[in-house]
Amino acid sequence: MEQKVYVIGIGPGAYEEMTIRAVKALKECDVIIGYTVYVDLVKEHFPGKRFLTTPMTWEVKRCEMALREAEAGQVTAMICSGDAGVYGMAGLMYEMREHMELGGVKITVIPGITAATAGAARLGAPLIHDFAVISLSDLLTPWEQIEERLRDAAKGDFAVCIYNPSSRKRADYLRRACDIMLEYRSPDTVCGYVRQIAREGEEQHLMTLAQLKDTTTDMFTTVFIGTSRTRRIGEAMVTPRGYHYGTND
Amino acid sequence: MEQKVYVIGIGPGAYEEMTIRAVKALKECDVIIGYTVYVDLVKEHFPGKRFLTTPMTWEVKRCEMALREAEAGQVTAMICSGDAGVYGMAGLMYEMREHMELGGVKITVIPGITAATAGAARLGAPLIHDFAVISLSDLLTPWEQIEERLRDAAKGDFAVCIYNPSSRKRADYLRRACDIMLEYRSPDTVCGYVRQIAREGEEQHLMTLAQLKDTTTDMFTTVFIGTSRTRRIGEAMVTPRGYHYGTND
Repeated sequence: MEQKVYVIGIGPGAYEEMTIRAVKALKECDVIIGYTVYVDLVKEHFPGKRFLTTPMTWEVKRCEMALREAEAGQVTAMICSGDAGVYGMAGLMYEMREHMELGGVKITVIPGITAATAGAARLGAPLIHDFAVISLSDLLTPWEQIEERLRDAAKGDFAVCIYNPSSRKRADYLRRACDIMLEYRSPDTVCGYVRQIAREGEEQHLMTLAQLKDTTTDMFTTVFIGTSRTRRIGEAMVTPRGYHYGTND
Repeated sequence: MEQKVYVIGIGPGAYEEMTIRAVKALKECDVIIGYTVYVDLVKEHFPGKRFLTTPMTWEVKRCEMALREAEAGQVTAMICSGDAGVYGMAGLMYEMREHMELGGVKITVIPGITAATAGAARLGAPLIHDFAVISLSDLLTPWEQIEERLRDAAKGDFAVCIYNPSSRKRADYLRRACDIMLEYRSPDTVCGYVRQIAREGEEQHLMTLAQLKDTTTDMFTTVFIGTSRTRRIGEAMVTPRGYHYGTND
């Protein structure tokens, strides 16, 4: 009996932002497991499947369920928003498989469009050169380490993409992150954010780092801080890669 | 007359790794423009389109062609491998539109699966937590800045994904990068690389940082360097996010 689980990145939200491979794998599955909100995003497109959900912080339980279903011979999909391998479930699935001693279950990770690249596309091209991705959630990571990473990314003049910029409990975290960036980067640095990427009510905004510091965001927002060279071109936020195109080149 | 150009990430190579949105946009286009190798990857799936190609280093010319086609009313696609916004053409398209004073041309960027997340999925979950993406190509970036970024990413204990690890001219660049990482990270750090992701002859390997230093790679390879906590779990390279799942939790 085959024991098989796909860990699938479904992209930022819209069905269209999924890859063909992700759709094919979901069609092949018997059971689709995920956080309630994500399962609701795909449900209508995959009739006849069994859907299992767990609430937000139940990640361990969710992975356990998926591995048990796969162990029982059900072709199983664990879905994640964005990419399965960027703050997604791919890592915990491998850890839990080891912990539960289910070495016979084959895990296949299917990548998806993560908020960093989906959001970048909406704003222009902020991450076109070297960049760092940092989550401000201190649920699983000490805040000191997050601060240290912000500092190192700022020093290295990386474009920075911030996930989970704030929540009710962490209302001032984005402000704190901006304060660190401001030690190394001008208040005029081009920044932007996208809310609800590829979902109803999507919105995007460009601003300076000084303005970003005073901006209120939420868990559904992805923030982009430009490098020292990032420019605003019309409606877009663009980090130059260094191409020469002037008339005298 | 509508003047419209899509900048489309076609993913790592296989048709299946494209998003549904990318396929729809390509179907809508009159003309598809890209680097010869990428155009060859998609050509058979979009019969009846006009295809224009330029060789590797002709990026400026390629963007110029795309903007002129769009100006002339042709619905145009500029295709990029991976994501259009990660070392892709999205940025230069905005820059060239400004330079050519073609403000009437509407640019829409359609994201794709970039090698960082496609490669990570093949290896396990190396980028599941904060990470940095760095290209070792010094064609447009001074080597000193690349070194500085490697150093800052190493200091911050980021997982690091390296694009363009070497070429004929830059045979020892990956070795130099590993030497910098070794100043901050153990020689036993879990590393890996994927060659020809989603293309014929795809291969992947896990190894230590010490071994990576002596590995020969090429332009079609994406390299992953783990954090201090990245582990090897069975065949996979996994960076833990910090979930607790032990029996006593």
